[in-house]
Amino acid sequence: MDLDSLTQQSGDWLRGTGPESDVVVSTRIRLARNISEFPFNTRTDDSTRARIVKQVRGALDDLAIPTVLQYIDVSELGDTDRQFLVERQLISRELSEGEGARGVAISKNEVESVMVNEEDHLRLQVLASGLDLSGCWQRIDQLDDAFEEHLTFAFHDHYGYLTACPTNVGTGIRASVMLHLPALVQTREIQKVFHSLQKINLAVRGLYGEGSQAMGDFYQISNQYTLGLSETQVLEKLSSVIPRILDYERRSRQAMLEENREELHDQVSRSYGILKSAHTISSEETMHLLSSVRLGVYLNLIDDLELSTLNELYIQTQPAHLQKLRHAELDSAERNKARAALLRQRLAAESEND
Amino acid sequence: MDLDSLTQQSGDWLRGTGPESDVVVSTRIRLARNISEFPFNTRTDDSTRARIVKQVRGALDDLAIPTVLQYIDVSELGDTDRQFLVERQLISRELSEGEGARGVAISKNEVESVMVNEEDHLRLQVLASGLDLSGCWQRIDQLDDAFEEHLTFAFHDHYGYLTACPTNVGTGIRASVMLHLPALVQTREIQKVFHSLQKINLAVRGLYGEGSQAMGDFYQISNQYTLGLSETQVLEKLSSVIPRILDYERRSRQAMLEENREELHDQVSRSYGILKSAHTISSEETMHLLSSVRLGVYLNLIDDLELSTLNELYIQTQPAHLQKLRHAELDSAERNKARAALLRQRLAAESEND
Repeated sequence: MDLDSLTQQSGDWLRGTGPESDVVVSTRIRLARNISEFPFNTRTDDSTRARIVKQVRGALDDLAIPTVLQYIDVSELGDTDRQFLVERQLISRELSEGEGARGVAISKNEVESVMVNEEDHLRLQVLASGLDLSGCWQRIDQLDDAFEEHLTFAFHDHYGYLTACPTNVGTGIRASVMLHLPALVQTREIQKVFHSLQKINLAVRGLYGEGSQAMGDFYQISNQYTLGLSETQVLEKLSSVIPRILDYERRSRQAMLEENREELHDQVSRSYGILKSAHTISSEETMHLLSSVRLGVYLNLIDDLELSTLNELYIQTQPAHLQKLRHAELDSAERNKARAALLRQRLAAESEND
Repeated sequence: MDLDSLTQQSGDWLRGTGPESDVVVSTRIRLARNISEFPFNTRTDDSTRARIVKQVRGALDDLAIPTVLQYIDVSELGDTDRQFLVERQLISRELSEGEGARGVAISKNEVESVMVNEEDHLRLQVLASGLDLSGCWQRIDQLDDAFEEHLTFAFHDHYGYLTACPTNVGTGIRASVMLHLPALVQTREIQKVFHSLQKINLAVRGLYGEGSQAMGDFYQISNQYTLGLSETQVLEKLSSVIPRILDYERRSRQAMLEENREELHDQVSRSYGILKSAHTISSEETMHLLSSVRLGVYLNLIDDLELSTLNELYIQTQPAHLQKLRHAELDSAERNKARAALLRQRLAAESEND
């Protein structure tokens, strides 16, 4: 797969057309799987890892799913290309920074992906636009079944699927929903949400997973545990909680609009104005301003901007994407200029298409 | 004269086409004159002031100058209209806030004006775009001569023209040049300029004269004394100093451009972006951003904006102008919205006329 071709498109999950897309950016489910004949990756040597890759690639060649998964050898990629895949949410930082034989298989629309030799031998992932836990589950269950026709996964009758880290034992499922919560952040209600979620064992993370900051008011909500709950129970738990957060965020947005419409209009419009005019801009400021503009689009305070454009800009203004688009290595100051140029160009084009 | 008609035009001095208009906004000369048969206004009662007005209006009706001066009775104007004339630099705050019979006679292009019953019985004023001390002097000398055909001014063989305040005795002349000095402000070199000017007895003031803050990096430089120097000497002194300040400001602009072109481009472009997108904006922020944009226009960092538009916006975004344009009394919050709407409208229209 030619990575450069990916710069010309964006994953289907970025379309911004899925259910509840005013608050829910995307839904993701991943499954941790290990091939029973090999030790966990905490104990594999280079040659074993290479054999794992070979076996997975063999399965990929003959996988009974409607889409083709193309394999990318991550160990052969340079820093920028690896970072590029991280920014597209197709691989984890761990896989990017790992060593030895490893890779990722990706469907053309970037909905399905399979990391090979991350913490576990396989990490299956399905991404969807908006809130779509059951759709993601159907697809990943199908993908899992397809692999099981070719591979024997480590499975224990009592514990379930065995994984390198005990937190994933059982179903090996992590279901997460990416939410955009600018109103809860601005009204400082977000802390209440965090506390409630922790109490019921749901985790909250920033845009790029574990340890990453919640840039641009994006929060990932996911299950903490995989043992003792069936996949259905995990999904039901999320499905029952998410609507309450959406409702909370929406009511906060409406309250902001009713109590301070003009100030809010001014704020989102200025954010849009700066994004359209800056000549140098950091990633952090970009995320902050895009978040404000996204809120403005949903509250009809900005009417000449497509949500898909905004969602794409979140990804395309990331460091590796900027460098891929420019076909050049750029230092931080150069990236800030390239980012501003991209924003001006894309947002000016958008306004002209009214 | 219908004040509302003035809202549809702007004074010739705002064209931004005069000499040295990259730094010099306007040149102004005023002469203080008193009619010998009346006491100074510190000692006039209402009926005397009314007689002064009557005599001046009589002279106005028959004045041998190429333009017509139309009289406005300031004592009959409401707060907004008086403030409107202050913002257009046609009357002083003192005349606006004074009591009793008083007024101003204005030529159609707002170049000539004559305040009646300010501190002195007459204050003649000529305004020009850019740096034009000799042009202003010719016009005001002509205006002064024309009045002297009808009025006898208080004059003392030894002291010269007599005035209510001793600082104006002698020639009664005040010549001032309005400079835009954003680079000297940003590089903090402006204090050096102030000190040098004070040493040679030139005064520095903000946009609206004595006591007013230097908003938007505008500074008025004028002579301090009227006694002991001829009119020509006053003008020569200013004429010799101003080019050095212009040179200093221009070199600072070039240095900023060479040392930090990108940061400067970013700054002026963001300022322009905010002015085009804000939905509420204070007068202070407007002046600050317009100053940045003005610098950008002169350094060719902004290319779709006419200087005359910028100069007009400085005046039209002032409180009384906004209220006159809207035909309504507006409180501070309403003015901030009206100001933002005016800026968006005017600057969007400008960009479309590329």
